[in-house]
Amino acid sequence: MQKVNLFETERMFTDIYCLEPGQEQKRHAHRGADKVYIVLEGAGRFHIGDDERDLGPDEIVIAPANVEHGVRNESQNRLVLLVFMAPNPNKNVM
Amino acid sequence: MQKVNLFETERMFTDIYCLEPGQEQKRHAHRGADKVYIVLEGAGRFHIGDDERDLGPDEIVIAPANVEHGVRNESQNRLVLLVFMAPNPNKNVM
Repeated sequence: MQKVNLFETERMFTDIYCLEPGQEQKRHAHRGADKVYIVLEGAGRFHIGDDERDLGPDEIVIAPANVEHGVRNESQNRLVLLVFMAPNPNKNVM
Repeated sequence: MQKVNLFETERMFTDIYCLEPGQEQKRHAHRGADKVYIVLEGAGRFHIGDDERDLGPDEIVIAPANVEHGVRNESQNRLVLLVFMAPNPNKNVM
């Protein structure tokens, strides 16, 4: 899984995530930070709290602060996501 | 110009903006809040500080906090934008 940062401030980051077939971002939670995933290419199986859902291109989902979330590429094609997070946990003491 | 909110917390909002030909979001600035525009459909002329640039589908730009920015639809087609902002100026005393 690759992450490419597009923009970063202390208030937010905007990244591209790329997951090959079988790759995943394991379930985790961020204290006090929201994450939005937008599917650009491919399809991903998203877990947000107790919800599990397959999303495809132009679909969007929020993982609110403190809610466990993750995504897995169960498909045979590359999954490309645009990811927005606020505030930026890399630049804040949460 | 229409704005449709998708997600909103005190930390960020995610909106869809729709601008018909000739419509614009006039230049303005947000104290202490960053805005990211992603073009979903059509083309827009973006002003970010002293920069003016036409962007089309899948192009992205950041208007950092305190920097004057705006967008105008100079085309003959509808312009659809995904907009992230952090923090949410509607829910914070800046």
